[in-house]
Amino acid sequence: MTSQSNPNNNPKENFSFQIHAVDGRARAGCFNTPHGEFLTPVFAPVGTQAAVKAMTPAQLHETNASLVLANTYHLYLRPGAEVIGDFGSVHNFMGWNGPMLTDSGGFQVFSLAMSRKIDEDGVTFRSHLDGSYHRFTPEKSIEIQEALGADIIMAFDECAEPYDAAYNTQAVERTHAWAIRSLEAQTRSDQALFGIVQGGIYPNLREKSARFIADLNFPGNAIGGLSVGETKPEMLAMLDLVNDILPADKPRYLMGVGSPEDLVNGVLRGIDIFDCVLPTRLARHKAALTFSGRVNLTRVENARDQRPIEEGCQCYTCRHFSRAYLRHLYLAKESLVGTLVSIHNVYMLTELMHRIREAIMAGTFTQFAEEFLTNYRPVGQNGGA
Amino acid sequence: MTSQSNPNNNPKENFSFQIHAVDGRARAGCFNTPHGEFLTPVFAPVGTQAAVKAMTPAQLHETNASLVLANTYHLYLRPGAEVIGDFGSVHNFMGWNGPMLTDSGGFQVFSLAMSRKIDEDGVTFRSHLDGSYHRFTPEKSIEIQEALGADIIMAFDECAEPYDAAYNTQAVERTHAWAIRSLEAQTRSDQALFGIVQGGIYPNLREKSARFIADLNFPGNAIGGLSVGETKPEMLAMLDLVNDILPADKPRYLMGVGSPEDLVNGVLRGIDIFDCVLPTRLARHKAALTFSGRVNLTRVENARDQRPIEEGCQCYTCRHFSRAYLRHLYLAKESLVGTLVSIHNVYMLTELMHRIREAIMAGTFTQFAEEFLTNYRPVGQNGGA
Repeated sequence: MTSQSNPNNNPKENFSFQIHAVDGRARAGCFNTPHGEFLTPVFAPVGTQAAVKAMTPAQLHETNASLVLANTYHLYLRPGAEVIGDFGSVHNFMGWNGPMLTDSGGFQVFSLAMSRKIDEDGVTFRSHLDGSYHRFTPEKSIEIQEALGADIIMAFDECAEPYDAAYNTQAVERTHAWAIRSLEAQTRSDQALFGIVQGGIYPNLREKSARFIADLNFPGNAIGGLSVGETKPEMLAMLDLVNDILPADKPRYLMGVGSPEDLVNGVLRGIDIFDCVLPTRLARHKAALTFSGRVNLTRVENARDQRPIEEGCQCYTCRHFSRAYLRHLYLAKESLVGTLVSIHNVYMLTELMHRIREAIMAGTFTQFAEEFLTNYRPVGQNGGA
Repeated sequence: MTSQSNPNNNPKENFSFQIHAVDGRARAGCFNTPHGEFLTPVFAPVGTQAAVKAMTPAQLHETNASLVLANTYHLYLRPGAEVIGDFGSVHNFMGWNGPMLTDSGGFQVFSLAMSRKIDEDGVTFRSHLDGSYHRFTPEKSIEIQEALGADIIMAFDECAEPYDAAYNTQAVERTHAWAIRSLEAQTRSDQALFGIVQGGIYPNLREKSARFIADLNFPGNAIGGLSVGETKPEMLAMLDLVNDILPADKPRYLMGVGSPEDLVNGVLRGIDIFDCVLPTRLARHKAALTFSGRVNLTRVENARDQRPIEEGCQCYTCRHFSRAYLRHLYLAKESLVGTLVSIHNVYMLTELMHRIREAIMAGTFTQFAEEFLTNYRPVGQNGGA
């Protein structure tokens, strides 16, 4: 298995993170990978099954997406890592030639598998597709992620229920042991392996986990187990605490988070990388993201509205289609509308990240964030989506 | 209601048909409309509800599609002609700026409506969407088509069961009376109104209908009521008979026909324009069109096949994606695959028409057709689709 990009054997030369500006705790930077660089802060759309839902790679490029995530759990089960391995990398398989990230499979094993049994060595689980038995260990997760060949790969971790203190205490211990084993299992130097901090909503666990993971000297660090049921203030408190500990010279990745207000709040607290299915999922559920809030496109007031989703938006959808047309497509159950609104929603988030970055570079991000969070109605414009 | 293209008030200057070459009965030509020209023979993909299923207008352009059809019956019921009228034209509504054609609504009233009652004046029918009552007459059909604003519009006709002689005799009479009323109802000069020949599989009726419609001097003539249940030899015999009568200096349009072998057979008999949902429908049903036959992409032999659907094909899909990836997307129920295979299938048909046109220009079309029809397996390659 070799990368398609003639990577250097020294991981330090394959990956680098430059910080271009700091504004409060927010940072504007650039992360280099064998498949090109991406500017941070960055929002990564999710291609769960090696496809960002309803979007071609060409359409993804047009939204200015620069980093795409794929899910190890899903691709391991179908089509299988060896099928993708035939192609050299998941990039080649899905036709996306920019930077990619795979998760460890841990989160889906805990959230999606039909059943699971955890021990110190790993997890035995049943596929949500056919009930068949499988086993993930840190070594197995890294082996699969090396076959998939993404530029950033993740340590195998355990994501516990946020409010179960005893379980989180155990899960943090296992996550730490598995982080060490993930590092030891890595054989490729052209993939950046990130560690993951766990600990639920418990400050003492989060602090302990952040210190442990930071000490392992990964080229980037992630925060897992948030946006999984806890309150927003609890999530933000954990970010404050963890990001004070995680090294400032390495990218920080908040996993699975992607609403506009969470992106702004995350960057305010020093996060550089986000991923979420939100923009494409909302598109399938008739909702569009704008800079002032969510819009439900099927509402009757859009029936003859010739305006785009958002005035001035430069995405393909807003340059060519009206709210009335998109509403018609939803009512007529034309799948095209999922594509068109996904294009807009992903564009809106990459554009938000672009404006955030510009504000950080200009030293005006605190004001930008305050105005955005004041004006943005997460669920509500026109009655919400 | 005005067109967006500053049309001339003289229909003769808004539309013209030039024949560039004749080879046997096949012709290569060019039809000019207020939204640009299209070369013939041409295959028109169908945007039933003002959207070619799962394809953006940008993707349609990339397939070299040059004429797009939309359905009057569907758009009248939803979103309503007045909504589209607000936009000036269905082109503007759906973001397709090339030539468009609308049918009269007649075929769907007879094939799709929940119930229908025909009289000499028109048809009262119940919507397949909600059971509501509606009435189409030739005047109403033209009024709707003028609101939709396509470049080519169709006379209101009655499509009978192909094997019912008595019904066809009646239907031809009504179609003829309605053709005259459609002509009289037309008020716009920037739309070319085509007549439609009916008559089932009955040579005497088809001959009578072709003479009657030809005498009305429409700027183009269509053949309806074929590919609706009759055998292929019956269909081809009707084409031979009708095209001997329809004027050679005007385009001939075979409605609702679009399989590769039917396109070749139609051009051999003097047809210039075709439309069909086949390429996009096949894509939703896991089948791809190639120059040697249909391919079922979900078959297990494609599981690790790194080749594109068709070697050498220049469509977006074949330039970027393998059979293995497309099979994975079908098995994973990713709607993206409907888009990707639709792109290929529409491209394949426009490319077929392009090669047919080149052969006509070179005087080698008879040989081209013979080779194509010998090699092409309509339902069968790899066991068929």
